[in-house]
Amino acid sequence: MEIVMRPIGEVIFVGEAKHASERFADRQEVIQIYPEYQEGLTDIVPGKKLQILFYFHKSEGYNCIAFSHYEKRMTGLFNTRCPMRPNGIGVTVVEVLAVEDGKLTVDGADMLIGTPILDIKPWNQGTDPTRNMKA
Amino acid sequence: MEIVMRPIGEVIFVGEAKHASERFADRQEVIQIYPEYQEGLTDIVPGKKLQILFYFHKSEGYNCIAFSHYEKRMTGLFNTRCPMRPNGIGVTVVEVLAVEDGKLTVDGADMLIGTPILDIKPWNQGTDPTRNMKA
Repeated sequence: MEIVMRPIGEVIFVGEAKHASERFADRQEVIQIYPEYQEGLTDIVPGKKLQILFYFHKSEGYNCIAFSHYEKRMTGLFNTRCPMRPNGIGVTVVEVLAVEDGKLTVDGADMLIGTPILDIKPWNQGTDPTRNMKA
Repeated sequence: MEIVMRPIGEVIFVGEAKHASERFADRQEVIQIYPEYQEGLTDIVPGKKLQILFYFHKSEGYNCIAFSHYEKRMTGLFNTRCPMRPNGIGVTVVEVLAVEDGKLTVDGADMLIGTPILDIKPWNQGTDPTRNMKA
C-alpha cells in the first residue's frame, strides 16, 4: 500500500527569535503555507500552540536499531526520535508568533529552510496525553 | 513534490481494556507491526508511552473550513483535528500494555481496525511541549 502526500507549505526562514516568547526556545521559523491551503489558517492567532508535522527531507534510509539521545544508547528505532525512519515524519509543538499573508511565524521548532510541511494541528494541554486519560 | 509513504503496520484488534491501566481510556488496540520493522520495537516495554502516527484511511477529501470539536465552531482546518485533511495523518499518545511477536497492545488510541500505522515514536513529558521551553 502506497500513500502519496503533498506538502501544504515549507519553511522559508530560520533565525533568532526577538524575545517575543519567554516560554519557548530563542529561535523562530517562518512557514510559507501554499495559497490553496491558506484559508485553513483561519483563527490561528499569536499565542496559540500548534503541532507541526513535517517531512525529514534530508534524511535517507533507516536502520531498525538507532541511537536514542534521550536514553543515550542504541535501541529500537521506534524507541527513538531519530530522523532516519521508514516514513520520515517529524512532529513538534510550537507557539505561534505571527500569521500574515499565509506566512506563519513560530517559535521553538527545529526544522531547516526548505523543510516540507505536511500538516498543522492545534495543540492544547488535552491533546497529549490527557485526552486519553480517564476523568 | 510527492512523498510516498508505506505503512509499517496496521491495527488488527480494537476492544475493551482489561483494566490494565488506570490512567488511560478503557479501550485497547492491537497493532501488528510488519516483519521487516519488528526489530524497531526493541526496548519498547509495557508502561512506556508512545506517539503513534497513523493514516486516516477512511477519510476522503477536505475543506479548508471545518468544525472544531474543541472550540465548538467552524474554523480553519489547521485549527481543528478533523480527520479530513490534505495529508490525513493522525497523531495520538498511547500507553503500551504488551509487546509480543510484533504485536503491540496499546491503551487509549482511537483508531479503527485496518488503520495503517505510519510511524511510532517515544513520548515523554519532555516531547510536547517542554522540549521547546527554556530551562
